[in-house]
Amino acid sequence: MRLATRVNGKPDGELVVVSADGSRCLPAGPQLPSLLAAMDDWGAATRDLEGLAQRLEQGEGHTLDPASLMAPLPRSWQWLDGSAFQTHADLMQVAFDTDPLNPERPLMYQGMSDRFLGPREDAVFASEDGGIDFEGEFGVIVDAVPMGVSPQEAMKHIRLVVQINDWSLRAYAVPEMKTGFGFILAKPACSVAPFAVTPDDLGEGWQDGRVCLDLHIDWNGERFGRANGREMSVGFHELVAHAATTRDLVAGTIIGSGTVANGDYAEVGSSCISERRAIEIIARGKPETSFMRFGDAIRMEAKARDGASPFGVIDQKVVKRG
Amino acid sequence: MRLATRVNGKPDGELVVVSADGSRCLPAGPQLPSLLAAMDDWGAATRDLEGLAQRLEQGEGHTLDPASLMAPLPRSWQWLDGSAFQTHADLMQVAFDTDPLNPERPLMYQGMSDRFLGPREDAVFASEDGGIDFEGEFGVIVDAVPMGVSPQEAMKHIRLVVQINDWSLRAYAVPEMKTGFGFILAKPACSVAPFAVTPDDLGEGWQDGRVCLDLHIDWNGERFGRANGREMSVGFHELVAHAATTRDLVAGTIIGSGTVANGDYAEVGSSCISERRAIEIIARGKPETSFMRFGDAIRMEAKARDGASPFGVIDQKVVKRG
Repeated sequence: MRLATRVNGKPDGELVVVSADGSRCLPAGPQLPSLLAAMDDWGAATRDLEGLAQRLEQGEGHTLDPASLMAPLPRSWQWLDGSAFQTHADLMQVAFDTDPLNPERPLMYQGMSDRFLGPREDAVFASEDGGIDFEGEFGVIVDAVPMGVSPQEAMKHIRLVVQINDWSLRAYAVPEMKTGFGFILAKPACSVAPFAVTPDDLGEGWQDGRVCLDLHIDWNGERFGRANGREMSVGFHELVAHAATTRDLVAGTIIGSGTVANGDYAEVGSSCISERRAIEIIARGKPETSFMRFGDAIRMEAKARDGASPFGVIDQKVVKRG
Repeated sequence: MRLATRVNGKPDGELVVVSADGSRCLPAGPQLPSLLAAMDDWGAATRDLEGLAQRLEQGEGHTLDPASLMAPLPRSWQWLDGSAFQTHADLMQVAFDTDPLNPERPLMYQGMSDRFLGPREDAVFASEDGGIDFEGEFGVIVDAVPMGVSPQEAMKHIRLVVQINDWSLRAYAVPEMKTGFGFILAKPACSVAPFAVTPDDLGEGWQDGRVCLDLHIDWNGERFGRANGREMSVGFHELVAHAATTRDLVAGTIIGSGTVANGDYAEVGSSCISERRAIEIIARGKPETSFMRFGDAIRMEAKARDGASPFGVIDQKVVKRG
């Protein structure tokens, strides 16, 4: 099942169920006005939503206008972003010139969740000096998770999978990391691809709590990366259990994988500019690729082997704050 | 003006206006069902709420049951906690055996905001091994703040002031700081004193963006600290401006001061156990005070010179998760 959220003038938007090919939709209706509301009682919601999905399969529904779509969850109570790709962690250590981390537990910070940009929304920044970078990653949305949950139990709470562009301002990242307090200035609002997808809908693209799909990244129309999500050193279920070690997770919590990165980066490229700069430092002693400029475009699309695009496309521009 | 939130079976509770002596209240009514809703259009809300405050002054209203109160904002979209007391930062460096920080900008992390405990609610933890500690601090609630706001403009967005117990699990804090990603496991849900107060209502207790009141801390019935909020190295308006450097702040964002600490700690004591342990390390080479045990009680109350208690009292127990 695929879900999306349509602009309706309200902060949470209107929840719609989307056909398998992404072309048609049916509104979830007044009982399920938004995805955030649906997450509160997912068991009940899913029965209604699956009924609508069946009607869509039978040809019902009206045309879905991609321009009308917000992030599937335009806002949520909690966004916890991991850093589960070891290749990304290793390269960022080079990019940031920081000491190696060998943490006993998964890396995770809490980020801004009051606003997620839609897949075609401009990303607005005050200055290019911030070191504007995209970060292609995957995420999961959970229903209510009790404190102390095991990874096995946590897996059952993963209700939806999303694809995220975790916008980053690299100039602030190192000083913020050095405080130990994590990222505030370095992590403005993320963008999210249009469709939130149930794990079962991903088929073989969902294995062992990992999104086993290539994430195609194009920067200003040129291929930049196509790393696969399968190389997470811990699965999403383990990230969820980690996040819930000392807190209950509220329904609608989004947990991120961190930037998708693969060991064969020489072949598949990267999902953020910082990694490419680290690869340049390793190869030639200094970074050569600059961060993004105003007017730049970034496109992200996760693709299955058969060419299917379960999350749809992020395609947005970097814009100077007016 | 003083506001509180009463239990009504909903996550955001029912907003009420409270009399100056804290004994009586009037419901804000269906147009302003919750404080979070009121923050969205504070200009309009405040006119209605002040009308109710005047009626309370004239003797209207019914008895306020302290046991019925939740946190003033039982949940919000964003909680950004600073660390603005230099004495606290210096002592925590001793407690944690970490390198001195000389950051150019205020310290700040994003914490859990989907749940704030009420002033008399039990604080539930899985284990005493977490190093259970209280942290007495102040906070402000802002309306919508635009990215890039100046500290002077930020001051105008500070609509309410609150008093917070920022529960901390010290065993997780150092490893989490060392990752640079900030606190997830070390920072479960905070508790908040019953009344949110407009800055003008604090009178001389609100100066230069600082809460100039003694914060009385009693642990198991014994005085532990009475540090004053005036020693913040930056004011709340500067914390708000920092938080808004690269993001718009959503209405209802809560910004914290970090643990209240004074240079004359030998006289006034501390607002968290870790600081006392650091003082013991400095004096006698090792910490002597243990962290909290199940069954322990913590009481916090900010007091004006005339004995007034603008935020009311936090009085809660530490309880083992059942």
